[in-house]
Amino acid sequence: MFSKRLCRAYSTTLNESTIARPLIRTEYAVRGAIADKAATMKKQMEQGIKFPFDKITHLNVGNPQDLGQKPITFNREVLASCLTDDPERNRMIYSADAVDRADFYLSNINNRAAGAYSDSPGIDIIVKEVKSFIEKRDDVEVGEDNIFLTEGANEGITLMMRLLIREKSDGIMIPIPQYPIYSALTTKYNGSQVPYYLDENKGWGMSYEELERSYNEATDRGVNVRALVVINPGNPTGHVLTQKDLNKVIQFAHDKQILVLADEVYQRNIYVDKEFCSVRKTLSELGSPYNDHVELASFHSLSKGLHGECGLRGGFMELHNIDSFANATINKFKAITSCANIIGQIGVGLMVNPPTQDTVSEGVFDAYQEQEQAIFNGLKRRANIMTEKLNGIEGITCNEVEGAMYAFPKIDLPQSYCDSAHKEGVAPDLKYCLDILEKTGIMIVPGSGFGQEEGTYHFRITNLVKSEEEMDAALQQIGNFTADLM
Amino acid sequence: MFSKRLCRAYSTTLNESTIARPLIRTEYAVRGAIADKAATMKKQMEQGIKFPFDKITHLNVGNPQDLGQKPITFNREVLASCLTDDPERNRMIYSADAVDRADFYLSNINNRAAGAYSDSPGIDIIVKEVKSFIEKRDDVEVGEDNIFLTEGANEGITLMMRLLIREKSDGIMIPIPQYPIYSALTTKYNGSQVPYYLDENKGWGMSYEELERSYNEATDRGVNVRALVVINPGNPTGHVLTQKDLNKVIQFAHDKQILVLADEVYQRNIYVDKEFCSVRKTLSELGSPYNDHVELASFHSLSKGLHGECGLRGGFMELHNIDSFANATINKFKAITSCANIIGQIGVGLMVNPPTQDTVSEGVFDAYQEQEQAIFNGLKRRANIMTEKLNGIEGITCNEVEGAMYAFPKIDLPQSYCDSAHKEGVAPDLKYCLDILEKTGIMIVPGSGFGQEEGTYHFRITNLVKSEEEMDAALQQIGNFTADLM
Repeated sequence: MFSKRLCRAYSTTLNESTIARPLIRTEYAVRGAIADKAATMKKQMEQGIKFPFDKITHLNVGNPQDLGQKPITFNREVLASCLTDDPERNRMIYSADAVDRADFYLSNINNRAAGAYSDSPGIDIIVKEVKSFIEKRDDVEVGEDNIFLTEGANEGITLMMRLLIREKSDGIMIPIPQYPIYSALTTKYNGSQVPYYLDENKGWGMSYEELERSYNEATDRGVNVRALVVINPGNPTGHVLTQKDLNKVIQFAHDKQILVLADEVYQRNIYVDKEFCSVRKTLSELGSPYNDHVELASFHSLSKGLHGECGLRGGFMELHNIDSFANATINKFKAITSCANIIGQIGVGLMVNPPTQDTVSEGVFDAYQEQEQAIFNGLKRRANIMTEKLNGIEGITCNEVEGAMYAFPKIDLPQSYCDSAHKEGVAPDLKYCLDILEKTGIMIVPGSGFGQEEGTYHFRITNLVKSEEEMDAALQQIGNFTADLM
Repeated sequence: MFSKRLCRAYSTTLNESTIARPLIRTEYAVRGAIADKAATMKKQMEQGIKFPFDKITHLNVGNPQDLGQKPITFNREVLASCLTDDPERNRMIYSADAVDRADFYLSNINNRAAGAYSDSPGIDIIVKEVKSFIEKRDDVEVGEDNIFLTEGANEGITLMMRLLIREKSDGIMIPIPQYPIYSALTTKYNGSQVPYYLDENKGWGMSYEELERSYNEATDRGVNVRALVVINPGNPTGHVLTQKDLNKVIQFAHDKQILVLADEVYQRNIYVDKEFCSVRKTLSELGSPYNDHVELASFHSLSKGLHGECGLRGGFMELHNIDSFANATINKFKAITSCANIIGQIGVGLMVNPPTQDTVSEGVFDAYQEQEQAIFNGLKRRANIMTEKLNGIEGITCNEVEGAMYAFPKIDLPQSYCDSAHKEGVAPDLKYCLDILEKTGIMIVPGSGFGQEEGTYHFRITNLVKSEEEMDAALQQIGNFTADLM
């Protein structure tokens, strides 16, 4: 059985020299060096090695329930009832309204089978719920064929980026700072990142002039700009765009005839006196010719908002003005992955079509409202604490956290600290975050992972600890560390 | 606000001429023309248009619960308890064992949060359950770092195919006939399909000689063969490979120094007197040098087997002899998609670590066993009916359905029928399946979607109807249609 080839040295098919360069170049900092160091420390703690703290605090990821946020009871009762599908028995412990809602979903699924593949774009009745949601939110008409239920927002973003990038010269305009899935996928698909800068001095706002500069710079180097990413409310900036801002974005996209990717997963996370305005609505209100032409894919998710159901992996994508051939291609690739998981899909239905006074009993409605309100109030209070406390730390300045789940403060790192970071071969902001982790157990993410203006340093921190006291305490520790540094 | 560019015709970013050719060329026949026609017919039925049948019968997709297979009670009670996490209340309607099992999972998750992202490779405690499962199944040692929990088997297959294909000359050896995700992804990533033929005359077996022929043919045309796909039990063939067959595969992979992708999602679906033998076990028993060198990624899924939980989207991938840099790259791409959905992950835990006589009460154990056994017996009886009845139809010959959920019979279509198909511009086997759908409402998939030897025609049909009577009836209708044709 042993062949003559055995004398030849065995070389692996997959190794550093045989994996495509774009895949190797792809970076994703949210779970990079910081996560690795934390994992090592956690193991050390389990082995009895002492640190000046009891536990690692995950302020690095937008993962609310990991830090103790509770799910909404009604939603979970519906999902549990869908899984067990025994209405009579379920009614003994779940609210009748939840069991009825589960029955509504199951009776619209072939053989009431929550364990079957759905049609690949999604369960028909939930696609209809999403359609109604957008129509009501934006006062528009939505075609069911333009809605795709996805695994989080992630899957929709990936589908679109894959279609947009054909070759190195295809460019995607990405805000800096940004949520790094956009840079990661642009690199993975071997396209060109076209950064446009958000203006930190104007609360992380965007301007037509900067979009134009960015576009021209890219075009000059031979890049064919295909799409523009807008993240609103902003991750990691916490900034909320006004409709006036969005008008500029749309005018720009129309002028350049490029597609808009609208990441709107934080649409319910707004803590100031601003109203969320979707790109879809902005287009509709601008009317012709914009609303007839500008191609749009917008993304929403079950992971953020007030439910924070990251682990269920639910989301949707809505397309507008997308060519029918492109739509069919998206359908084909959705079919190859079969469908988004059914529990996540039903979660999306519950998010876009929540119980109302007219549809459920008073008790169920009140409990739902109370739970959502408590979550919202907590997020808001902690966002305010972040703005206030971060600005109280010497060497740190921070724009108001208007929305989303993050602050993205600037740190004026001393030159000596930057020098020693460079000597160690790490970016100064990464060193800062690693040092904080080692000293306090708090995980935050360096600004370099999201992009920042050359020579400036930032970090991203979430407002997801359970209480104001914990938020205060975490910021106090970061403040103490930073004060020592200065 | 209206810019001077308005006079320029607006051209869309995404359309048939601006989407990358490999994406357009990608084909996925399981949900193609047949699914489109069925959707149209369904709408017509809803509008009151009469057909000679009451409903569409989905014998095209391996989607057991869509056709009425019931989920396993214990599993669903565990999942429901994880979602509501109120052990005391849950005990009122679920078995104490199920509630305890849910408690076991939740107590191993930070803050008991089934709604949080897990670590991106998967929930630690479930990774450990998978590790034990493989170790026990194959009498081997498995590293936790080599296990990834995935959304069905699909995600793992996609991750590996993406890493393997760098350029057009990178080739993947794919069995013909095959489950078309392999051809679809090879085309999508712009690599080269390297078909090797399974021998229909030998029950769809494989031979070293055919592997060698296929490899040499590819190498001669400049293709750099990177990996070999093995699907065992076979989809769509229903064939089960013996350990002796697998020895040949491994010897071949070792000789050529190529990676093996082992699709083993039907490992519990064997209806004849053969035992499932994994590629991992085969490697281990062959020993050195094979077991030290041959790179392997194997895939398993919650969607098939006896649970058929397609909609939960759970699965895992195990790596063996994979280079650490490649492993780190897989980890990075897993991180970009955050994690597989938690309910699917827990479903995988339940699949690989089922209740035993020692861990649950007698009643729960017996009920579990009974449910699984009834599902297995049904699958087996219907597989036997397929083999027998298909071979009883004039013009159709079919190898014994030894495993999986499919038969892949050959049809000797009359020349006149083929001619009229060609005139209509459709493949003869597609015409056959479209005609059957129109006459009987039964959906089956043409062989051209899976690949078949030039000039031969096949179709794939599942054994997933609820009863033997339905299976009989469906095959009777196909038989009648085919007899008319002959």
